[in-house]
Amino acid sequence: MRIGLDVMGGDFAPDAIIEGAVDSLQHLSVDESLILIGDKGLILRKLNEMKADPALFEIVHTTQVIEMGDHPAKAYSQKQNSSIAVGYGMLKSGMLDGFCSAGNTGAMLVGASYTVGVIPGVLRPALATVLPCIDNRDSVILDIGLNPDCKADVLSQYAILGSIYAKYVLGTENPTVGLLNIGEEEAKGTSTVKAAYELMKEQPNLNFAGNIEANALFRESMTDVIVCDGFVGNVILKLAEAFHHIYKTRKLKDSYFDRLDWENIGGTPIVGINANVVIGHGISKRRPIMNMVIQTKEVVHANLAQKIKEGI
Amino acid sequence: MRIGLDVMGGDFAPDAIIEGAVDSLQHLSVDESLILIGDKGLILRKLNEMKADPALFEIVHTTQVIEMGDHPAKAYSQKQNSSIAVGYGMLKSGMLDGFCSAGNTGAMLVGASYTVGVIPGVLRPALATVLPCIDNRDSVILDIGLNPDCKADVLSQYAILGSIYAKYVLGTENPTVGLLNIGEEEAKGTSTVKAAYELMKEQPNLNFAGNIEANALFRESMTDVIVCDGFVGNVILKLAEAFHHIYKTRKLKDSYFDRLDWENIGGTPIVGINANVVIGHGISKRRPIMNMVIQTKEVVHANLAQKIKEGI
Repeated sequence: MRIGLDVMGGDFAPDAIIEGAVDSLQHLSVDESLILIGDKGLILRKLNEMKADPALFEIVHTTQVIEMGDHPAKAYSQKQNSSIAVGYGMLKSGMLDGFCSAGNTGAMLVGASYTVGVIPGVLRPALATVLPCIDNRDSVILDIGLNPDCKADVLSQYAILGSIYAKYVLGTENPTVGLLNIGEEEAKGTSTVKAAYELMKEQPNLNFAGNIEANALFRESMTDVIVCDGFVGNVILKLAEAFHHIYKTRKLKDSYFDRLDWENIGGTPIVGINANVVIGHGISKRRPIMNMVIQTKEVVHANLAQKIKEGI
Repeated sequence: MRIGLDVMGGDFAPDAIIEGAVDSLQHLSVDESLILIGDKGLILRKLNEMKADPALFEIVHTTQVIEMGDHPAKAYSQKQNSSIAVGYGMLKSGMLDGFCSAGNTGAMLVGASYTVGVIPGVLRPALATVLPCIDNRDSVILDIGLNPDCKADVLSQYAILGSIYAKYVLGTENPTVGLLNIGEEEAKGTSTVKAAYELMKEQPNLNFAGNIEANALFRESMTDVIVCDGFVGNVILKLAEAFHHIYKTRKLKDSYFDRLDWENIGGTPIVGINANVVIGHGISKRRPIMNMVIQTKEVVHANLAQKIKEGI
């Protein structure tokens, strides 16, 4: 397995990315290689400073950087020797099995649609992430920000994409799917959510559990998959971040609240494209970068893109 | 000041409502009276059981009950001697300054629009509630469930309604207003939220602070007013409930997380109608009922309905 890591992307690149890369090695087996994509000089200097053996990595030298503030589409097409564009090119040509970056999110999405493309039959790709449940399960929620306005058929298809994710990446057999809503009754919510309910009810091979309210999230009552539009998903994720922050500020100690830390999750796969790609938070430092690499490995192991191609 | 309390509404009515009523008396001054609306026999029996003096209350006898499962509009028009319909009638005729109930929410909303009516100029009334901030401020969020689908002009007007609430009920001078969104930049979010941003930016007399992301909520970074549609507001409120529940389950102790308890807030005013009305949670027991009465008193003191009439 070959995992590409964009060393130049993120607020703390390249140093924090290289540190996370070194840490991630202990989680990779001998047939799993990490390919560092970025400025070779900077990479070697940092590895030397860390007393890490450069031979542990493959290094692909790039000369350009897509900055965090760059216009995504423009930068992607103009900087074809940037780490992001090179990473996507390697993905497309089969030189990588997975690619991850904490760099310019917009450029990562441009690369996803321009270079590797959407899986035929997928209406709209989504960003998915894991919500830790108090009973030690992990659930998957999608979309968390790619599509703030979702039509009903898109939401309904997210139920399928999420189920595939839960089954193959998280290992949940016959995952339950909840439609996020503001009441349990079928007639609740916006017209879009009501229409999505009708579509999801009729889907074969879906373990549809009906509507789920936000007070059931993170608890035993949480379904294995949570479907919502990207606006609501983003609110849920960021509100969990707020409460985790408050928990830390108040100097409380609890193993469950510790699990809410986004740094433990590391990144967000783009679900529905022809490759295994994980996007990290721009503010990622050493530990979340390590976790992003581990998560990319898991997505590649699950062969998520292929499983979606087969399942859609 | 005369506050009407629906004794027959709520999952634990009438006993828990009467218990809360008795407790609330210590928070009312001599010129503030509480009027119990419900079955007089049941009320007297419960007061007697509690060894509470019936002379402390005015009792308005009603013979019908709108059940929690009743069809709101049908029940409201057919049960004109129910505590909810009688309460609204008294509000309309000026025999009450405020009215609160933990009963059938739908019927409470029907009464609001049928009997007391929407304030001219208000596009859509909202349900507002208070979010406790870690810096000891209270912010107001609206809508939290009345209008899951909000147009941009409705959101923009919520900024005004919320500012009036913050100023007169919470005592916040020149309250800051945030538009809940999934990014800080002006161009983020759904088309509706983007349009609302443009409208809010142009509103005179509004202390508009731009977009606010969910990870800024409950923290120092929270604006005094948070504007969102009823779907998103409901998700935020219920997610806070989930985290408070987890906090309790994990047996953590913290004065801030304690403040997140919805029982401390007690109820949700209907903002934008011609009367001061507060709706309580159906599962309210003694303490939240007491807090609902106190909150109604504060809304009446602020003369919220009148202030909105003047401010719109």
